[in-house]
Amino acid sequence: MPLKPPGPLSLVPFVSVEHMMQLVIDTGVERMLSDIAAYIEEDFRRWELFDKTPRIASHSSEGVIELMPTSDGITYGFKYVNGHPKNMRDGKQTVTAFGVLADVDSGYPVLLTEMTLLTALRTAATSAVAAKYLAPEGSRTMAMIGNGAQCEFQALAFKAICGIDTVRLYDIDSRATAKAAANLKSSGLNVVACSTPEQAVEGAQIITTCTADKQYATILTDNMVGSGVHLNAIGGDCPGKTELHRDILLRSDIFVEYPPQTRIEGEIQQLDAEHPVTELWQVMTGTAPGRTSARQVTLFDSVGFAIEDFSALRYVNDRIKRSEHFTSLDLIADPDEPRDLYGMILRAAA
Amino acid sequence: MPLKPPGPLSLVPFVSVEHMMQLVIDTGVERMLSDIAAYIEEDFRRWELFDKTPRIASHSSEGVIELMPTSDGITYGFKYVNGHPKNMRDGKQTVTAFGVLADVDSGYPVLLTEMTLLTALRTAATSAVAAKYLAPEGSRTMAMIGNGAQCEFQALAFKAICGIDTVRLYDIDSRATAKAAANLKSSGLNVVACSTPEQAVEGAQIITTCTADKQYATILTDNMVGSGVHLNAIGGDCPGKTELHRDILLRSDIFVEYPPQTRIEGEIQQLDAEHPVTELWQVMTGTAPGRTSARQVTLFDSVGFAIEDFSALRYVNDRIKRSEHFTSLDLIADPDEPRDLYGMILRAAA
Repeated sequence: MPLKPPGPLSLVPFVSVEHMMQLVIDTGVERMLSDIAAYIEEDFRRWELFDKTPRIASHSSEGVIELMPTSDGITYGFKYVNGHPKNMRDGKQTVTAFGVLADVDSGYPVLLTEMTLLTALRTAATSAVAAKYLAPEGSRTMAMIGNGAQCEFQALAFKAICGIDTVRLYDIDSRATAKAAANLKSSGLNVVACSTPEQAVEGAQIITTCTADKQYATILTDNMVGSGVHLNAIGGDCPGKTELHRDILLRSDIFVEYPPQTRIEGEIQQLDAEHPVTELWQVMTGTAPGRTSARQVTLFDSVGFAIEDFSALRYVNDRIKRSEHFTSLDLIADPDEPRDLYGMILRAAA
Repeated sequence: MPLKPPGPLSLVPFVSVEHMMQLVIDTGVERMLSDIAAYIEEDFRRWELFDKTPRIASHSSEGVIELMPTSDGITYGFKYVNGHPKNMRDGKQTVTAFGVLADVDSGYPVLLTEMTLLTALRTAATSAVAAKYLAPEGSRTMAMIGNGAQCEFQALAFKAICGIDTVRLYDIDSRATAKAAANLKSSGLNVVACSTPEQAVEGAQIITTCTADKQYATILTDNMVGSGVHLNAIGGDCPGKTELHRDILLRSDIFVEYPPQTRIEGEIQQLDAEHPVTELWQVMTGTAPGRTSARQVTLFDSVGFAIEDFSALRYVNDRIKRSEHFTSLDLIADPDEPRDLYGMILRAAA
């Protein structure tokens, strides 16, 4: 028998996976990537006012579970996210996530949403925003090494935000490449399936690496990276997991999200703790230079930071107000009198 | 138009506030407090194998939002909880919470539940478990200073777990006392409404303080605490918020949950960082003494620790398997092929 229906203070909007898919479909994926990118850029430009902390990780032999909180003083957000490379063998996602926005003034949650899809979108949007500032002018071709769950989102974000017209795909598993090529067939991109990483990087101004092995790997060796290239390194994102040969790092100008986190998790875990890096937000606000020459190798050593999730959550929170794509969860106890929590149960039982 | 229904890997059991109330009503509140206490005791006895970290707090002028994660290596849990004393003025809860359990091996969430009610239950259960080890033998009377949302849960937990038969209530707001007295009328406890804190502590072997002001307060002065008493101090639980006069601390043997957190948040923030304290789990496992004499003043300086929430989440996760009191949320993206996240959207749109 249902009890008294939940009061308005108890209800928190919830965006399920199905609702998120409907938001993407209604909005159009490229438009949504561009819109999320605009929210990310807006938040990176006010970087200094955010509460920042490296994510809180719980490591196990098979993977990691992380909480990524931040706040701009008005709104608080956090994401729960896992990373378990072996999940794929069991038909599960390597990375799943959900997130919450809350009102700082009351502490009450205002949004709960799936973030597996949303993380894929915000990761791609962040990569493309970084490339907008760092990639060589007139970049048209991107190599995509690693054709897993993130691949198509990257390709579409670089098309929508950076004007890329060609993607060259390579994966150690050719079925992954075939999957990505099929999914991108009608995207308007020229899609070239490659059988070696060397072939994939041919003629590319931008090289994105996004592989999932939890180990020190060498997806790119030094001789594969010519001058003037922008590297977008996504997959090296936890301690013990890197993708680029150290020599590449030594001849790149390195751009990062939040140094205290990237030094532990990113490609630069291979370097001294004092190796110079530039924070991406400083490039966006004009307080640090981005690309300064056509021959320079730029590297965005991306590990994913809480502010990007915050931006994506803000976007969804605004976006669902113009849609039907959410439900409401009875998540917060709302007794008639706030101190009468026990009385609420007593009266329900009566 | 609904898309393809969510696959089984996408679904996470969700316990709403209404479902939690139904669980309490079906189980009986005293039985549920006792059962949660048993889970807490079980986890405190294996304290050493947990990942432990002080909670991650985001402070603002009006309150705090915290994430409280822990893991036993098999299961991961965390709670989102706020503390906003001024919320009451707006008809909102001072403390609201929700929590998640997840499988460490895959990182997949296995339970999402409201925890406003559950936190009230676990806080009371923890207090009573501590008192079982620390309160003087034959304790029958508890003074309850602060008659807010936590009050009745404390009274019932001490009745169910410690054999208390009398509670003496005092609150600075007599309406709160009247509310608690009315709610406890049919509980089987002798309920004495008092008009001063001095009157409330008369003849009490256990004194529980649970007030909500975010400030250094002196709910108990030194002369109010006689020898042989057990103090259960709940309300001093964040930096700048204490309830007991420092002199009381200096003549008490102090027991805490997790010293790195309690030194920042508990009553002992008033003391030197080296002041000796005993960890409650050590008393439970017999590796440290609890109460050693009838005249000793024992103080459980409780701030609430992640392992208590973990125990409560474990309880709910087990309990709902014998009930109908949950729904399932489509929280985790579950494409046909794990790497084909984008294809899932494409196919839904087709």
